[in-house]
Amino acid sequence: MDSIKIFSPATVANVSCGFDVLGFCLDSVGDEMVIKKTSSKGITISKIEGYDLPLETKKNVAGVAGLAILEAANVNFGFDVEIYKHIKPGSGVGSSSASASGVVYAINELLGKPFNKTQLTAFAMKGEAVASGNEHADNIAPGLFGGFTLVKSLEPLEILELPTPTDLYATIVHPQIEVKTSEARAILPKHIQFKDGITQWANVGSLVHGLHTSDYDLISRSLQDVIVEPHRKQLIPQFDVAKASAMQSGALGVGISGSGPSIFALSKGETTANQVAEAFENVYKNTTIDFKVYVSKINPNGIKTLS
Amino acid sequence: MDSIKIFSPATVANVSCGFDVLGFCLDSVGDEMVIKKTSSKGITISKIEGYDLPLETKKNVAGVAGLAILEAANVNFGFDVEIYKHIKPGSGVGSSSASASGVVYAINELLGKPFNKTQLTAFAMKGEAVASGNEHADNIAPGLFGGFTLVKSLEPLEILELPTPTDLYATIVHPQIEVKTSEARAILPKHIQFKDGITQWANVGSLVHGLHTSDYDLISRSLQDVIVEPHRKQLIPQFDVAKASAMQSGALGVGISGSGPSIFALSKGETTANQVAEAFENVYKNTTIDFKVYVSKINPNGIKTLS
Repeated sequence: MDSIKIFSPATVANVSCGFDVLGFCLDSVGDEMVIKKTSSKGITISKIEGYDLPLETKKNVAGVAGLAILEAANVNFGFDVEIYKHIKPGSGVGSSSASASGVVYAINELLGKPFNKTQLTAFAMKGEAVASGNEHADNIAPGLFGGFTLVKSLEPLEILELPTPTDLYATIVHPQIEVKTSEARAILPKHIQFKDGITQWANVGSLVHGLHTSDYDLISRSLQDVIVEPHRKQLIPQFDVAKASAMQSGALGVGISGSGPSIFALSKGETTANQVAEAFENVYKNTTIDFKVYVSKINPNGIKTLS
Repeated sequence: MDSIKIFSPATVANVSCGFDVLGFCLDSVGDEMVIKKTSSKGITISKIEGYDLPLETKKNVAGVAGLAILEAANVNFGFDVEIYKHIKPGSGVGSSSASASGVVYAINELLGKPFNKTQLTAFAMKGEAVASGNEHADNIAPGLFGGFTLVKSLEPLEILELPTPTDLYATIVHPQIEVKTSEARAILPKHIQFKDGITQWANVGSLVHGLHTSDYDLISRSLQDVIVEPHRKQLIPQFDVAKASAMQSGALGVGISGSGPSIFALSKGETTANQVAEAFENVYKNTTIDFKVYVSKINPNGIKTLS
């Protein structure tokens, strides 16, 4: 096999209480990529459709991630990458991560799967660092592993695959404003109250327990973020209104996706997830902000081969 | 049934990363209590053997806890309590909690079980407050529910029963020095570093996942406390040496039990737990500190009726 076409889905990181550690994978939105073996060494990016991103290998997250896996594989050939981008950069649902994860998944398939998913995560993190300035795994892990993931630690890199209750759906609203990652980061405190830490880790423990027991009510009660959301929500117009409206429509929980501006809701069942979508729409259609809303089953498998 | 004899076990709270929320129940050490229905209202404590504790109802944790359940039950009779205390007060394995939990469990049995375990926890917390100055549930919950418990929140009170891997054993060493709860509390900071909080909730999530999947290696890697232990370990002579020695003997993890001075270790299998006991003994027998060491299976059932 010298060529592969893949689907690399959008992902949600910083799931409420699980800042920096918990993420999940979406199903209905993602990029497509075509990766072809080339006789020349290295990575070329011959085409990017959808959004204006650098074709130069070392400036492109997919390029840098591709180089990382190539270096480890130590082969005397290379790959060409075409990216058909559907996830808008800067939307907060892992756009750069989808490119980075997609390319390492694809190259690993073409090489005959010499690397495991944790190794692939490490390669993709090299690419992610191009976009975000530092290596993190919270969007990459759910893309490569699927379902809910917990980044237990970065050094050593350890990713846990958590169970995904079958009836769990996400609704995403992307208010199309710019939230600079640097600003979203600068707004966070260096220190937190001890008591808030305790609340947060009680909720993380409960959420993991709720995922294991498919206890949707417990999942709902655990989707609380007393630390990051109070700071970051001010960067997202109408956040409180959208959250309240989604909760009233039956959502289990609502939070900021990644560092925003997208907002995610989790619901039991597609019907409720669609009602939540309507609630989000009703909030933002009365503003001057462009927005997109989509509903997705939690994707248990992550990136997939299309052909 | 007008009389009951029960066994109320020792418990470990503040399990490493799970400060204030995670606890587990021991099997081999605990108090015995005999509770008898009386025609007069209220609670009397007619006997306490083992340690010198107040017989006056309102000054005794069991007395106050008993009054709390009696008030809710609204009956026109009362109970007499005999306490055969084997858990030394101030040892850090839930001595006061065992008395408080034991009496509410026993009275609930004699009343025909009108209350659920969460309600019993709330009654026992009233008693615990007599000893510790504020209501907390981290020792009461594992005593009443058994196994590993997670106190998700105090308001509203919500306790989660976590699964207990069948081959998990605890080793406890109790260096018989006094650690004042007030001092153990005063030594904790009001604020913690955000990055330490993230490490802690990643570990809590991993530990819960490890308990669900009986992944002993993951349990081991998750039994890390980067927040409380660094402060409190200085209150316990030889803590670092004892911990290192237990880990070398095969323990999965070692931490401070409650607010100390007892130290707990968790191990896979009784053989390893016994080796860890020997390691603890070897550390403390070379000091002038009196100590006790015991090994216990994690008790999945909690308080039990003896007759």
